[in-house]
Amino acid sequence: MKKFEEKTIHTEKIYDGKVVNLQVDDVTLPNGKTSKRELIKHPGAVAVIAITEDKKILFVEQYRKPLEKSLVEIPAGKLEPGEGPETTAYRELEEETGYTANSMEFVTSFYTSPGFADELMYLYITEDIEPLKETVAGDDDEFVELLELTLEEAKQYVQDQRIHDAKTNYAVLYLASKQT
Amino acid sequence: MKKFEEKTIHTEKIYDGKVVNLQVDDVTLPNGKTSKRELIKHPGAVAVIAITEDKKILFVEQYRKPLEKSLVEIPAGKLEPGEGPETTAYRELEEETGYTANSMEFVTSFYTSPGFADELMYLYITEDIEPLKETVAGDDDEFVELLELTLEEAKQYVQDQRIHDAKTNYAVLYLASKQT
Repeated sequence: MKKFEEKTIHTEKIYDGKVVNLQVDDVTLPNGKTSKRELIKHPGAVAVIAITEDKKILFVEQYRKPLEKSLVEIPAGKLEPGEGPETTAYRELEEETGYTANSMEFVTSFYTSPGFADELMYLYITEDIEPLKETVAGDDDEFVELLELTLEEAKQYVQDQRIHDAKTNYAVLYLASKQT
Repeated sequence: MKKFEEKTIHTEKIYDGKVVNLQVDDVTLPNGKTSKRELIKHPGAVAVIAITEDKKILFVEQYRKPLEKSLVEIPAGKLEPGEGPETTAYRELEEETGYTANSMEFVTSFYTSPGFADELMYLYITEDIEPLKETVAGDDDEFVELLELTLEEAKQYVQDQRIHDAKTNYAVLYLASKQT
């Protein structure tokens, strides 16, 4: 048996959405009692640290409805059905920034909110990018603006909380830690 | 008007849970078209990097139902209604580890999944902790096991994906970057 395993007694599917599914499971706890677990099912996502020839990092600013404000983030997006994360990394970079990568290196992965969601975030890095000759269509409900920042500028954006999300804060810390 | 703002036309409350609420908003996009946004409402959370006198970092292992496996994470928990994040930091450390802190320093904060959730994670650090004389009761449906690891051990846990979540991966990278 897995450590502290919670056995599912019953699953109720609450909502089947475009991005997330919600289900509520009744579980048996290690002490024999029962409890409810609210679970968000998510296809997983990829984020890309992309660095230009003149050492600028690519970011996109976009409105985040759950926060009712815009954030500056590294390019990222959900995995399409059947798509491997590296393919998503190439695709999202093209759709969101107008750059294409010739290579892509895996950095790490992490669950974003393991307490209530199964979203797994894969992080890649590339320093081998060039502008696309033609723009690539992305999601038709997504509006993003490209920013190219130095690492020092990005650190200031973290201070100002214009960069304020797990994957992007991680990326800035990762680049800063490699610099020293 | 905020950048790329999406105006809410209609809000449908789908689920009102113990940890998360789900609502679906119809929005007007910057180009005048409409779309749906699935939004998870979460009270926010706090995580604590706690370091013992002999330089061990405190972690807790617990079963994560959304992943159907256990993860090793830094102590963390949700904000209670009306509770400030620093208070949550002291409380969760006591409940989950049996240590109490005499001081607490703010490190950073970040949204964990801004695409679909408003969960804001506050990260604190303390190197000023001591064992509690009496244990403190935590949530009655939470089963955690304390681990005390060196930074080198923690880095290996990241490699092995026993540490595999945004706040904890960030914490290990943060400590590693301070060490150099």
